Amino acid sequence: MSRFIRVVPVRDAVSSLLSIAPDPGMESIVLSEALFRIPHADIIASHDIPGFARSIVDGYAVISTDTIGAGESLPAMLTCTGRIEMGSSDPGSIVAGECRYVPTGGMMPVGADAVVMIEYTETAGDQILVNRPASSGENYVAPDEDFATGEVIIPSGHRILPQETGVLAAAGILSLSVRRIPRVAVIATGNEIIAPQCDPLPGQVRDVNSIVCESFILQCGCIPVPCGIVPDEPDALTAAIQQAVLTSDAIFISGGSSKDERDATARVIAELGRILVHGIAISPGKPTIIGQIGNCPVIGLPGHPSSAFMVMRAICGPLLSAMSGIAIPEHACSATLDAGIPSAKGREDYVRVHLRDGVASPLFSKSGLLHTLVQSDGYVRVPAESEGFETGAVVEVILW
Amino acid sequence: MSRFIRVVPVRDAVSSLLSIAPDPGMESIVLSEALFRIPHADIIASHDIPGFARSIVDGYAVISTDTIGAGESLPAMLTCTGRIEMGSSDPGSIVAGECRYVPTGGMMPVGADAVVMIEYTETAGDQILVNRPASSGENYVAPDEDFATGEVIIPSGHRILPQETGVLAAAGILSLSVRRIPRVAVIATGNEIIAPQCDPLPGQVRDVNSIVCESFILQCGCIPVPCGIVPDEPDALTAAIQQAVLTSDAIFISGGSSKDERDATARVIAELGRILVHGIAISPGKPTIIGQIGNCPVIGLPGHPSSAFMVMRAICGPLLSAMSGIAIPEHACSATLDAGIPSAKGREDYVRVHLRDGVASPLFSKSGLLHTLVQSDGYVRVPAESEGFETGAVVEVILW
Repeated sequence: MSRFIRVVPVRDAVSSLLSIAPDPGMESIVLSEALFRIPHADIIASHDIPGFARSIVDGYAVISTDTIGAGESLPAMLTCTGRIEMGSSDPGSIVAGECRYVPTGGMMPVGADAVVMIEYTETAGDQILVNRPASSGENYVAPDEDFATGEVIIPSGHRILPQETGVLAAAGILSLSVRRIPRVAVIATGNEIIAPQCDPLPGQVRDVNSIVCESFILQCGCIPVPCGIVPDEPDALTAAIQQAVLTSDAIFISGGSSKDERDATARVIAELGRILVHGIAISPGKPTIIGQIGNCPVIGLPGHPSSAFMVMRAICGPLLSAMSGIAIPEHACSATLDAGIPSAKGREDYVRVHLRDGVASPLFSKSGLLHTLVQSDGYVRVPAESEGFETGAVVEVILW
Repeated sequence: MSRFIRVVPVRDAVSSLLSIAPDPGMESIVLSEALFRIPHADIIASHDIPGFARSIVDGYAVISTDTIGAGESLPAMLTCTGRIEMGSSDPGSIVAGECRYVPTGGMMPVGADAVVMIEYTETAGDQILVNRPASSGENYVAPDEDFATGEVIIPSGHRILPQETGVLAAAGILSLSVRRIPRVAVIATGNEIIAPQCDPLPGQVRDVNSIVCESFILQCGCIPVPCGIVPDEPDALTAAIQQAVLTSDAIFISGGSSKDERDATARVIAELGRILVHGIAISPGKPTIIGQIGNCPVIGLPGHPSSAFMVMRAICGPLLSAMSGIAIPEHACSATLDAGIPSAKGREDYVRVHLRDGVASPLFSKSGLLHTLVQSDGYVRVPAESEGFETGAVVEVILW
């Protein structure tokens, strides 16, 4: 089958893709790989943290009732029975009338129920004068005060932030089960396409789309699987796709830009699976194909790099985001157009713009050229229901 | 020397650090590693792109003067001399009265100066009826129209975006010289600190700061160099720092949280180099040390993980950004405080908040606890000149 299905709106194309976004499943990783990963179950404290009563100041561990009424004029006088070393597991104990020096982070001696900051004490031989009353529980944390056994440390589905890797370390979580990072196969097709390391003869062009796809996939937090350049032969493309389905969770095929090649890609996808969308009401990027082979979404991107890239932004980003569980941040600003952007109603236009001092200049060029991708700072989206923007209009520019 | 220098404002601490930020220099990388790297010189096209006259539509290459006056009622009749294959280096030539089929992306035959889209033609045997006049230059790109030899493809200092990796591929740029990614050594000190894979005895705590430092460094686009846990012995710390200076562009030392340990760290830094700042008017994070050993900035972070992390956000981020050349995006939103935040004048406070439905709840807890790092969605910065915010105040929340 290679009949053209009707051109669908961008939002329908995105819905189609999201409806077939596969769950990449789970994998086990070690703590040092946990940054920005997403646990698939609540991570629970298996023991109390910090696990012992811990001073939060440099000072003297005391029994608070010994300090009732203490003041500068009438300090409480306590016998210092020594000094607790950092990391020591044996802080000893104190009884009424005694105190013991404890550094910040040190373990409280048995019997103590408060710490007096060193600033509020004076030393007189082995006696410590305490100038201020301490209340029970002051200046230390209880063994389970940070996290108690059984408490949720990081909830399921939460993307682990830098500071949270430390909490995992504190809890001794050395491995964890997280959402697997989706792998996305990248295939380039076209008899005119050669690898970047080759010198093109006239009529040949270096493969641009593969590395742009791979870079975009990386930017989306997924893993690109480069599958090379396939000539415009259905058997070769079939073999490449069948191989890619085995190794990847989704496939991006940047089609040749001629109609024959696009048709070949659609035909092969249809034979191996099914086609959901063939043609999107988007400019550039109309001849995009959305298919599915087994559980694997397959996107046939246009051959023109600038078209392919805009389609990635418009529809592949949401797919990868759904698969990875990671929202792709989009940064935008307002700008005034210094030239009009005409647009056909019923079609979403993605017009690249150059931005300077709040003024956006639309970059129009012949299709297939790369330089608008380099010269632009972002793009303006013209909604399907709009006929474009006039000079002087204030528009939202979505920044690269 | 270990005298305390006066506590300095946050902005002065940042200025001090920026004044000693080393240039990490350059390194050569291959094209597949170019994403998000920063070239140190303009990248120039060494040949024309696309390098040949290239059709941008499916249609017939013609000599435009053959189509003057052509219309639906009186089409121009041209002899089709064949079909140009994609990737073919030999498109042949045409003379007056002839045309040749050329697919999108195909090479123009010699003699042709326009392409008529297939939609405006009809086939009659080996004759092609052209229903519309073509103007010279229409529907193809000239050999140097995308980039001409000598043109700047990507300017020096520009961070290479996904779409731009494709332009490098098109130009056959297989390797490039870019700013080296800074390496940052991470040392934890403290006799009470044990590796996360160990089971803590009472009085011991697992190393939280190292992995938080390493995660933060990764988030900033730099390379962490884990240097392990060093006991509170000047000789051990000296050896660890001397080793780190050899391998890294900057050093983060998370100090023990007791005053003795902080003093030891400052003393060692002073002996090996110099101390610029010892104490910052920031809460949490006051006992931070900024030093320099050779050309290597050394930051002595507080031992409390939440303090260390806020200092990373406040002063280490700007340093890494200056070294890497990569701005670290900061996302913020407005929210209404549901409780007041008192603050001492002259000190910048970083108060972690929980955020829900536009309401920010300040999270206060004893120092040294980790859970505010997990429970918070971001933080509110109270400027040094402010005495805090009252309940109901609308504040800016900087999101994690």
